[in-house]
Amino acid sequence: MPTCTLCNKNDAIYMRRYSGEKLCKKCFKNSVEDKVRTTISKYEMLEPNDKIAVAVSGGKDSLSLLHILADIEKKFPQTSICAITVDEGIRGYRDEALRFAMKSCQELGIKHEIISFKELYKVTLDELAGIIKGEEEDELSPCSYCGVLRRRALNMAARQVGANKLVTAHNLDDETQTILLNIIHGDAIRIARVKPVLDSEHLKLIQRVKPFCEVPEKEIALYAYLKKIKFQSVPCPYAHTAMRNDIRKMLDTMEEKHAGTKFAVFRSIERIRPALEASAEKEKLQDCELCGEPTPDKICKPCEMLQKLHII
Amino acid sequence: MPTCTLCNKNDAIYMRRYSGEKLCKKCFKNSVEDKVRTTISKYEMLEPNDKIAVAVSGGKDSLSLLHILADIEKKFPQTSICAITVDEGIRGYRDEALRFAMKSCQELGIKHEIISFKELYKVTLDELAGIIKGEEEDELSPCSYCGVLRRRALNMAARQVGANKLVTAHNLDDETQTILLNIIHGDAIRIARVKPVLDSEHLKLIQRVKPFCEVPEKEIALYAYLKKIKFQSVPCPYAHTAMRNDIRKMLDTMEEKHAGTKFAVFRSIERIRPALEASAEKEKLQDCELCGEPTPDKICKPCEMLQKLHII
Repeated sequence: MPTCTLCNKNDAIYMRRYSGEKLCKKCFKNSVEDKVRTTISKYEMLEPNDKIAVAVSGGKDSLSLLHILADIEKKFPQTSICAITVDEGIRGYRDEALRFAMKSCQELGIKHEIISFKELYKVTLDELAGIIKGEEEDELSPCSYCGVLRRRALNMAARQVGANKLVTAHNLDDETQTILLNIIHGDAIRIARVKPVLDSEHLKLIQRVKPFCEVPEKEIALYAYLKKIKFQSVPCPYAHTAMRNDIRKMLDTMEEKHAGTKFAVFRSIERIRPALEASAEKEKLQDCELCGEPTPDKICKPCEMLQKLHII
Repeated sequence: MPTCTLCNKNDAIYMRRYSGEKLCKKCFKNSVEDKVRTTISKYEMLEPNDKIAVAVSGGKDSLSLLHILADIEKKFPQTSICAITVDEGIRGYRDEALRFAMKSCQELGIKHEIISFKELYKVTLDELAGIIKGEEEDELSPCSYCGVLRRRALNMAARQVGANKLVTAHNLDDETQTILLNIIHGDAIRIARVKPVLDSEHLKLIQRVKPFCEVPEKEIALYAYLKKIKFQSVPCPYAHTAMRNDIRKMLDTMEEKHAGTKFAVFRSIERIRPALEASAEKEKLQDCELCGEPTPDKICKPCEMLQKLHII
């Protein structure tokens, strides 16, 4: 068993190929927590008197992040943290995840707000998936609807709890997959929007930040395991789109062969983002005619989707 | 057998999934030739009094393009075409390709210039590969050296034959692979340079144009087959880098599942290129201190490589 290259004392349990480090349990956990602190400070994600809402699904990423943030918060008495979970209404899946989320919040003494699709949109995702199946011409998957509706729900919940920051647990893998997905979908302009801090351009839009954006998914899984955090591990029954899965596999293969590939993609986009942002027209936001939420169009995307499915 | 959706007469032999067209032999060939004409005109690649040098390797892409350009040229008596082949000195490979190149040039009545690594750089690629093997710390593959040295050789040959345009047969697959390669290598800035027309920023640099940039590789292969063009089909013994092969496979899989993916990537980059170009600093070119060729550095890349291997 090799020795940890950081403390030179304990047995290493993880080989971080992209840096060449071999880490023991303790140094590995510290390194992940340090990385989160560095990312928060580098991108100026959080400030001492923030009211933070953390989007908690009940999976390894959001629960690990919640634990790390709860620990960081101890040093900032003016900061407050509240966990938000969106209950999309996916039977046999979200109900279990909710229990894990509640358990972690109880342990950490963090207030936990649950907002459901049913109360917000009058339908659960399961019901919505049934409606989509009936609409033969609909090319969108349940995941496409869920993404839009969940983002809206998170923003509303963050506002309701009085937060000025919304933290999500998107990791390095999520971000690089989304970047390549946008390019492969012909939406390269949108890669400018895949970024660690999404500025709020409207009073009703809470600023979103991603402190895990530079941590590979694999390391978060190991972190959760070592910290003995109980999380939901079964995948969502609606799963991801085929395209994202293909890209995930390709990136994993590349990373396996050429350690550091995911970071390279991430940095690549960091470098070109300023140029893309400078050229992109700033979207002017107005109030949706139906629900009053901010939108670049007359009718916001969530309302448009609900209308299309004859739900509103 | 379905009927051709263009002429509504002949049997279709090709289903173009990204457009939904079913094409007969004749309409398919016409469509590829039309696409080349459209691309040339859209990107203003060629003008009636151009002296054109076509880079001809002897493979399906360059020979198909040479046939199409020879045909287009008939209508432009002021245009002249000359074929250039770089003989890298790859025994059992380039020699055979050279014969195919010569045969096509003879058939088409096109002047054919051959320039060799041996005469230009004093070494063949085979010799160079042997030297690289000996250098343990060298991380570059023979392909990396070959790419740089071949580009230089093509530019010099084009200049020698008095050309003002250098045509290469890079196809849609080549271009989209290079775009993703650059992103995955962390070189996103370089994607601005993967483009249909590479402007010359120095008198000694001949403008490069790529009339096949919007034609998928598969269609060029079918075109060459239907036109009974004899070309070399064995792959180069040094092959491509593992990374490019992985990306090729991934793009092919995506295209199979979602027809039009390659075009989407290409268009994606078309849209963001202006922003990237505007932000990129223009490289100032000077004469290489060793060979006098234009370079952004004191010593040009080819000379730097040859120095590293103690060849000059």
